[in-house]
Amino acid sequence: MNALLLIAHGSRRQQSNDEVRALAERLHEHCGDQYPIVEAGFLEIAEPSIPDGIKCCASQGASSIIVLPYFLNSGTHVVVDIPEIVQAAQQDYPDVEIKIASHLGASELMMDLLIASANTTAEKP
Amino acid sequence: MNALLLIAHGSRRQQSNDEVRALAERLHEHCGDQYPIVEAGFLEIAEPSIPDGIKCCASQGASSIIVLPYFLNSGTHVVVDIPEIVQAAQQDYPDVEIKIASHLGASELMMDLLIASANTTAEKP
Repeated sequence: MNALLLIAHGSRRQQSNDEVRALAERLHEHCGDQYPIVEAGFLEIAEPSIPDGIKCCASQGASSIIVLPYFLNSGTHVVVDIPEIVQAAQQDYPDVEIKIASHLGASELMMDLLIASANTTAEKP
Repeated sequence: MNALLLIAHGSRRQQSNDEVRALAERLHEHCGDQYPIVEAGFLEIAEPSIPDGIKCCASQGASSIIVLPYFLNSGTHVVVDIPEIVQAAQQDYPDVEIKIASHLGASELMMDLLIASANTTAEKP
């Protein structure tokens, strides 16, 4: 069973964390057939942590977990911190395949998203 | 003449700022017909600032500038700081129409981007 774990930085502003949780719920609505398990997790400040998010996916029977870093740039968090945490957690779940997706800014779809956002704004009265 | 001004937070890590500048260049390649002017700007730390970015667009003859906040969440920077800075700059350029686009996390395309990123990762050997 496939799981997605959406990882954000975590904010002291509760509304930002709730936005991430709501995004994970919308993701589940959009791709629940392909990914029956979708959870949110946070690098810092907010809960659940990344290890707790992985534990949550595994306890629901995930055999594969894709960690989706909700970060725009390939900074230290994306390049070093998240991989280290995921690698440590992988040792606790040797039977679960855990992979980390690219950061969002690298995607060609980001281009489409930005242009669509600009065009929508341009059309506003 | 239409301009896009991509605004990121700005980082002490130069590579992150360069990624934003490169993204602005790619945006220009993708939508140069529609937006002959595409610039990058930064809220803090890096240069050019938002007012300098607006000045740069205006000096190239922009009659319309769409400010694209390259932020995932609707935090204080997106809700308060960027609008305040843009509003102040608007007074210096009364003949230029300046609009601010929504933050990226609000877009339905973000869903597609996340799912595409997950699926690409899932296919990796």
